[in-house]
Amino acid sequence: MSSFYRRATSVFTKHPALTKILVVATVSGGGAAAYSGSIPFNGAYADAGCGDKKKVVVLGTGWGSTTFVKNLKNPKYEVEVVSPRNYFAFTPLLPSVTVGTVEARSVVEPIRSIAAKTSLDFNYREAECFKIDHENKKVYCKSTQESKSGKKEEFAVDYDYLVVGVGGLSNTFGTPGVEENTFFLKEVEDAQKIRRSVIDCFERASLPSVSDKEREKILHFVVVGGGPTGVEFAGELHDFVLEDLAKLYPTLKQFVKISLLEATGHILTMFDKRITEAAEDKFVRDGIDLKTGSMVVKVTDKEITTKVRATGETESIPYGMVVWSTGIGTRPFIKDFMKQIGQADRRVLGTDEWLRVEGTQSIYALGDCATIVQRKVMDDIGAIFDKADKNKSGTLKVDDFKEVVNDIIERYPQVELYLKNKKLKNFVQLLKSSQPGEELDIEKFKAALSEVDSLMKNLPATAQVAAQEAEYLANCFNRMEQCEKNPEGPQRFRELGQHKFKPFRYKHLGQFAPLGGEQTAAQFALPWDFVSIGRSSQWLWYSIYASKQVSWRTRVLVVSDWGRRFIFGRDSSSI
Amino acid sequence: MSSFYRRATSVFTKHPALTKILVVATVSGGGAAAYSGSIPFNGAYADAGCGDKKKVVVLGTGWGSTTFVKNLKNPKYEVEVVSPRNYFAFTPLLPSVTVGTVEARSVVEPIRSIAAKTSLDFNYREAECFKIDHENKKVYCKSTQESKSGKKEEFAVDYDYLVVGVGGLSNTFGTPGVEENTFFLKEVEDAQKIRRSVIDCFERASLPSVSDKEREKILHFVVVGGGPTGVEFAGELHDFVLEDLAKLYPTLKQFVKISLLEATGHILTMFDKRITEAAEDKFVRDGIDLKTGSMVVKVTDKEITTKVRATGETESIPYGMVVWSTGIGTRPFIKDFMKQIGQADRRVLGTDEWLRVEGTQSIYALGDCATIVQRKVMDDIGAIFDKADKNKSGTLKVDDFKEVVNDIIERYPQVELYLKNKKLKNFVQLLKSSQPGEELDIEKFKAALSEVDSLMKNLPATAQVAAQEAEYLANCFNRMEQCEKNPEGPQRFRELGQHKFKPFRYKHLGQFAPLGGEQTAAQFALPWDFVSIGRSSQWLWYSIYASKQVSWRTRVLVVSDWGRRFIFGRDSSSI
Repeated sequence: MSSFYRRATSVFTKHPALTKILVVATVSGGGAAAYSGSIPFNGAYADAGCGDKKKVVVLGTGWGSTTFVKNLKNPKYEVEVVSPRNYFAFTPLLPSVTVGTVEARSVVEPIRSIAAKTSLDFNYREAECFKIDHENKKVYCKSTQESKSGKKEEFAVDYDYLVVGVGGLSNTFGTPGVEENTFFLKEVEDAQKIRRSVIDCFERASLPSVSDKEREKILHFVVVGGGPTGVEFAGELHDFVLEDLAKLYPTLKQFVKISLLEATGHILTMFDKRITEAAEDKFVRDGIDLKTGSMVVKVTDKEITTKVRATGETESIPYGMVVWSTGIGTRPFIKDFMKQIGQADRRVLGTDEWLRVEGTQSIYALGDCATIVQRKVMDDIGAIFDKADKNKSGTLKVDDFKEVVNDIIERYPQVELYLKNKKLKNFVQLLKSSQPGEELDIEKFKAALSEVDSLMKNLPATAQVAAQEAEYLANCFNRMEQCEKNPEGPQRFRELGQHKFKPFRYKHLGQFAPLGGEQTAAQFALPWDFVSIGRSSQWLWYSIYASKQVSWRTRVLVVSDWGRRFIFGRDSSSI
Repeated sequence: MSSFYRRATSVFTKHPALTKILVVATVSGGGAAAYSGSIPFNGAYADAGCGDKKKVVVLGTGWGSTTFVKNLKNPKYEVEVVSPRNYFAFTPLLPSVTVGTVEARSVVEPIRSIAAKTSLDFNYREAECFKIDHENKKVYCKSTQESKSGKKEEFAVDYDYLVVGVGGLSNTFGTPGVEENTFFLKEVEDAQKIRRSVIDCFERASLPSVSDKEREKILHFVVVGGGPTGVEFAGELHDFVLEDLAKLYPTLKQFVKISLLEATGHILTMFDKRITEAAEDKFVRDGIDLKTGSMVVKVTDKEITTKVRATGETESIPYGMVVWSTGIGTRPFIKDFMKQIGQADRRVLGTDEWLRVEGTQSIYALGDCATIVQRKVMDDIGAIFDKADKNKSGTLKVDDFKEVVNDIIERYPQVELYLKNKKLKNFVQLLKSSQPGEELDIEKFKAALSEVDSLMKNLPATAQVAAQEAEYLANCFNRMEQCEKNPEGPQRFRELGQHKFKPFRYKHLGQFAPLGGEQTAAQFALPWDFVSIGRSSQWLWYSIYASKQVSWRTRVLVVSDWGRRFIFGRDSSSI
């Protein structure tokens, strides 16, 4: 069923209103890779691609890695996936899993099943990569399970190409006590733990020996981070308490309190302002205590301490449970690899616009663990000018640009964005803006383009970005031989010839923010930019999320989970 | 929906061929009650039944306790359930949960939801009882969860009546290494752990650094105990490997081995011999290595050591995973209570035929933690004779029996069984067998009944027994006032008057033994005793197990799980 993702995508392309929308920003690989440089390597195994097949090793089973595997079709490659979890998880539904609106197993699909539906020469290893040796084209891996003797198997895997899609870790920003006392919400296991813990709080508060004051503490649920995951979890939790638990624990409803803490001035800041406003309004109506501008400085086993950013005042509040959902950190082995290749000062792996990791030959990276380092026009301005100035006259006429203008727009996405923002029809208009008919020298050329680079933006760490990158990269691999003969990318400005492929270009399709109570806020990017809030968006959200499931199995499961919830409510067994 | 169980039961009564059949023998309460006599009691709470309501405290949420709560209707009672798990689990499907034929959540229902469907004045506490104080009518309980300060809440609960249905623990028979190295299969959590562990074994065996010899070890699954749970698990595992895992791990199939170890000479010894034979034949055909007469003497982290009972030879076999399913042990706080009431020499709590714990006034016990201590006819023979011999002549005529014969049969179930076995129509025939027309003195009366007591049997530790006991007991509670005025039990032979209620009488309805591969062996007790093996029994098993589910929610879930498995196979994600 490798065609599903593409089929679904084409539906969105044909009916852009049913746009491709993904809310949660996790593309992670699961579990921390505990790499220490001092571990000696004992594994004896190292197998290279056999015959003339090239071996592609993929690290991770998140959005990026899985989408890459699903879309890879070229029989010239042999694929080996290494990841600590043997399944792909549909992460946008994780907040629903935390309260049982959807079951954990309904949002996962084993990577082996996914690969079995392709015709790939495929292998999977349940292990964590702990070291990338790019000089010898090897990755070093460690089994996630201990063997009977208490040791974790170690082994090396050779590669011809390496695709890194290991996602990130939950970021505590070094806040003391977070690791020990809070729940993260990045993995399926996290969601299961949260679910159990919510019920545990209700059972603990039901004990006869507990005072009402303690009940208030135990039933105080704190969500840290006003991003899509945190907001959706708060909404889901509110629904769960109101719709299901209030009936089974009638005396406890009065003690329940949900707080949402956000360090910046607003929640859902990466969304359209109208969505932010709608979400904040709804939370106030629902009685969710929304505290913006409130930074968490410490979490103990009993209290969470916050600092009001504006005044610097600190406050300690007792809680029953804290869910921490504030951003993405880099895995240790990726940090280590970044030092090796001279990227020590970056936050995540930097790649070029073709997703190749800078400073390496055969390593690609995508999703949350990587970012595309866009080239500035200003850095290449001389080369561009020289390329356009064929007669080496030192000045350019409009006609001189005709041959390079498309290459410039393709190579530097900020140029297109600039033209759009300034409402200019084409590149020539931009240059003419200085003076009509004029010939440009290098200084004037620079002046015309001086503001362009200010529009460069990093792509957000979302599932949508990772999946588009992976689809793009798989497509490059699929057409590798073809494009080597007939390159289709833009001209190289600093060298001769053309780039093999067109650079990756992200197409933002929109976003959903489910707010609970059958209210969903949606922002659509195509064909027009508009925002919709309410029940109709909720149904659209259901239908799109159902259609985006990774397999028919998970699709049937997710839809029947929704049906069950409508009929029977959510289960409150403490398993 | 308190009527469901009764409705289902009446279906079986009206159509006895669709008989009430329960295979697995667990009625447990979950988790070991770690009671230590030295724990000081700090709880301050103790609430008694308010008004003129009598307070019934129920320990446990297994088959016995839950069925009792569902069937209790008398508004004169206030009910408080104390159990470490807040849900009832349909234990006969646990072996199916181990491999994902059915999902864990599909076989559980929160006790609060069950009680909400009755009109009971109901409370539930998630806690373990650690001490019963029958003199002061109190139970001492400890929360299963630690509070933030790392302490478990303790509290006391007063009762007017106490119903003990806490089930048992897995019994290791003191075999060294079992606790540390094997998996039990009594609780839902156990089944979930086993499921994860099976997949873990396959993933570990897929690592490139593992040798084929190690693969054989890792994929050697050992089941200890040839009872219904062990046999069904072995069958389910065999199906899972063959139907699902063989496709996803094609290179590993050849290394898989399943062994079933049973200490006695046959598996399923509590079943009809024809079932035992069918099961053993099927296992041999399937390639499951069945070792009967093989006692486990030690389990280390790498090997399981067995002793052949016949020869005394020991053998150590490496394994990947061991599931231990061999019998029921008694919880420590029950053992402690038994010492208090002079039952120290028993294995489980002894009750009379009205399920009241011997040596106590207001405590009842049912399910796996209890056994009915039947009175011997021989112990009461003098009293019976005296009661019948109204004119105190020292001899009895046939007519003298007419008034006591029904009471005898009701009071001593072994008498009815004896008559049936000997194909005698009635009690008088039994006495006449000595010589026609004769008058009996006490010695001849004794001689006539001398063999009767040899037919006394302990009831098996099955869900079927626990559920019938609970229904009986709830019915007694429901008609308490009524029967106090108009007692309906048999005459008391040693005292004046009548017993308030008829004694409990178990009605064996049959048993199922699912063997995997859509093969189920079934033994039907009513209306005729017959055995059926094959696909038709499988469908009957499906339909009966579906109908026996505790709520409509779980019924829909279980049936849809079966549907999913037919269509999509079982999931192999390691969650």
